Amino acid sequence: MSKSLILVTGGARAGKSAFAQEWAQALAGAAVSFIATAEALDEEMRNRILRHRRERPASWETLEQPLKVSTALQQARHPVVLLDCLTLWVSNLMQVEKEVLPEIENLLAVRAESNKTLLVVTNEVGLGIVPDNALARQYRDLLGAANRRIAEEADVVYLLISGVPVKIK
Amino acid sequence: MSKSLILVTGGARAGKSAFAQEWAQALAGAAVSFIATAEALDEEMRNRILRHRRERPASWETLEQPLKVSTALQQARHPVVLLDCLTLWVSNLMQVEKEVLPEIENLLAVRAESNKTLLVVTNEVGLGIVPDNALARQYRDLLGAANRRIAEEADVVYLLISGVPVKIK
Amino acid sequence: MSKSLILVTGGARAGKSAFAQEWAQALAGAAVSFIATAEALDEEMRNRILRHRRERPASWETLEQPLKVSTALQQARHPVVLLDCLTLWVSNLMQVEKEVLPEIENLLAVRAESNKTLLVVTNEVGLGIVPDNALARQYRDLLGAANRRIAEEADVVYLLISGVPVKIK
Repeated sequence: MSKSLILVTGGARAGKSAFAQEWAQALAGAAVSFIATAEALDEEMRNRILRHRRERPASWETLEQPLKVSTALQQARHPVVLLDCLTLWVSNLMQVEKEVLPEIENLLAVRAESNKTLLVVTNEVGLGIVPDNALARQYRDLLGAANRRIAEEADVVYLLISGVPVKIK
Repeated sequence: MSKSLILVTGGARAGKSAFAQEWAQALAGAAVSFIATAEALDEEMRNRILRHRRERPASWETLEQPLKVSTALQQARHPVVLLDCLTLWVSNLMQVEKEVLPEIENLLAVRAESNKTLLVVTNEVGLGIVPDNALARQYRDLLGAANRRIAEEADVVYLLISGVPVKIK
Repeated sequence: MSKSLILVTGGARAGKSAFAQEWAQALAGAAVSFIATAEALDEEMRNRILRHRRERPASWETLEQPLKVSTALQQARHPVVLLDCLTLWVSNLMQVEKEVLPEIENLLAVRAESNKTLLVVTNEVGLGIVPDNALARQYRDLLGAANRRIAEEADVVYLLISGVPVKIK
């Protein structure tokens, strides 16, 4: 399973991060490099970030990188890298008006050259009613395209439903 | 299949209740105890409740209990009990500011002691765009945690998509 | 696989149309009749329609029909017909206050008599938080009922997640 690309998707609070962390730990044996894309812009986010950090082993390397995820992947010290999550990365890129899909292609190219196993956590956000505001629709389109592109290259894709992992590729 | 815990999840209008009712009927042979968590607070809800009641066999026992679901499970006369639905129960608990997760643990403990088969209907609500309001996000988090906890203990989990049951555990 | 009814469902931007088009092309060998239900009411929709049209083979027949989909199915020149999508058709019917479910029954009857293979693309819209406005809830109910009815009659149902097809029936 070394050098694989693995996508873990599902809804919010479906157990994606916990599943990806257990899997990364099992693949790595030792420590994992964790790329965190979340930024603590308000109290709610700060609490989520702290809670998530407490759930990870203390031995893991954490790279906080809201935008330059490919650089973080190059810098990661361990052969197994967990990116959590694509959802926030796409959102962060949109906020600074960076093109999303070229960034995804770049990440895939860096990963292919890197000899590292990369687990990517993402969200499905397109299974509700069409959002009222245009920005949310644009986000939904871009994240959908990013998810499809990574799933296309992935060796394995898991969908998490109520904490139950379903292997779909 | 007696004494099992079964979770039926999926989106709104995906055929979860109909599937769970057919299954409960098949397991029970005879009558089923039905725990209804819905409250008729407005016309729309009243119509849904009446429509759902007409879809159930007249011989079934109905326990209307928006909050004390574990008590209803203890009081249920039949060995097969259908709880429809977890989604509204969590919402009702939040409205009266009761802690949700201890209630879930209590339900699981009562079920384990009860010698009854329990089918739980719930919803996936985390596969759309992040909701604008904080209460909806808090609800999404709590229901997600409740779903994961019940799925973890469940013997069988079904996901309903467009009325098609997909066994995921 | 001739004369089948096939449902392709999933979230927005999950690759449903691309998957259905590849499949229709493979089934047909030659050209496919494409029933387009989208109407270019604003710039955003016009762009989506044009982008989708460019993605289809030039040899395909396109029938633009926001409302009279059963008539379009009767008029289609080719034995393989792709309806994209049910979601917009239901929305269009609601806007002109036509009853949705009798239209679905009529489509199924016309299809059964027609000797044609019909692929239907639809969306799952019920896996997010309950929408605030009553019209969106009504739409969600009606589309859910339409999806269930077509899935019930379908020979094959695929769920698309991040572009990955999952056969669920």
